[in-house]
Amino acid sequence: MPPVIDFYFDFSSPYGYFGSTRIDSLAQALGMETRWHPILLGPMFKTTGAAPLVQIPLKGAYGLHDMARTARLYGIPYQQPDPFPIGTVPTARIMLHLQERDPQQAKEFARRALHAYFVNNQPIGDAETALEIAVSLGADRKATADALASDTIKQKLREQNDAAMQRGVFGSPFVFVGDEPFWGFDRFDAIRLWVNQGGVARAG
Amino acid sequence: MPPVIDFYFDFSSPYGYFGSTRIDSLAQALGMETRWHPILLGPMFKTTGAAPLVQIPLKGAYGLHDMARTARLYGIPYQQPDPFPIGTVPTARIMLHLQERDPQQAKEFARRALHAYFVNNQPIGDAETALEIAVSLGADRKATADALASDTIKQKLREQNDAAMQRGVFGSPFVFVGDEPFWGFDRFDAIRLWVNQGGVARAG
Repeated sequence: MPPVIDFYFDFSSPYGYFGSTRIDSLAQALGMETRWHPILLGPMFKTTGAAPLVQIPLKGAYGLHDMARTARLYGIPYQQPDPFPIGTVPTARIMLHLQERDPQQAKEFARRALHAYFVNNQPIGDAETALEIAVSLGADRKATADALASDTIKQKLREQNDAAMQRGVFGSPFVFVGDEPFWGFDRFDAIRLWVNQGGVARAG
Repeated sequence: MPPVIDFYFDFSSPYGYFGSTRIDSLAQALGMETRWHPILLGPMFKTTGAAPLVQIPLKGAYGLHDMARTARLYGIPYQQPDPFPIGTVPTARIMLHLQERDPQQAKEFARRALHAYFVNNQPIGDAETALEIAVSLGADRKATADALASDTIKQKLREQNDAAMQRGVFGSPFVFVGDEPFWGFDRFDAIRLWVNQGGVARAG
């Protein structure tokens, strides 16, 4: 059986957004399924000593240039959002809640939320905006709002983020093909190369 | 006239080494010439707050895995050197000295030195080892050793490293196609895409 592709992303990560537009077609071409995992880069950056890209001298200016150029080169709709980056804890919590019942709906929620932020500059980190997106997909407003405020979902997001770090995740996007880790949208070609050169068989 | 490709690399950077094995064939395919520039990441990391990759939690372990895998996927000879990283000030100084008279010889020196470190684990940061490589290319031992010890070449390396940072260079490899910046071996496909999608004409 082919391995599952685990796709980790932060809702405020441009390269995570770019990855989200390609990961399922890449997986399909490789005959694999994907599981999507929202993460929070904040706690991860504390572990690795990283800072938000745009705050770093030299690297920040290059990063903004590279994001817009990457979108253009790969034909992905993109408008640099402002403010950027933003906190996206409610967005990640709602996705986890939706995922408990319907992983496909949760994936579609993620796609719409990422598009709303990175194309239409909508404040998807605000609970109300994130809720609207869930409701537009047929989620019950009250049930989703209740879940969002619950300790259960807060705890779950913390646990899942910790589990991702335990597994080695420290950036966005981060992909595992089975147990093989790939960091960055710029490793998507390497994923294909790795699989085609027999990586799965060697790793299995 | 097509723009020149400026290729910046640190002698202790695996991704810089990977880039060095491909940059001239990439440039040739695009009908362009290259200029090679040795840099020192140390002073740059002070500006960006970066640390040597392998010292960073999570990222370090992934980095070592990714270096070996990248070499394998792209068919580049590689053995993780030890110690790693190393200081390469003498290596960079010798390259600058050779470059004053013969840029092609300087490029060949860089290729041999990178191969010596990343394939044969030779201590290319030691003045004696770096000198031997220069001598193997026909450089005069005494003249090269004298240049290596001169204030002129120390000053020149400092100035060129500062000029690179002024231009926006903060990592290795770092490439400019004309004025368009690309950071990382994983942007080499983007260079080709950018040129093929009319980047040069748009930027010019």
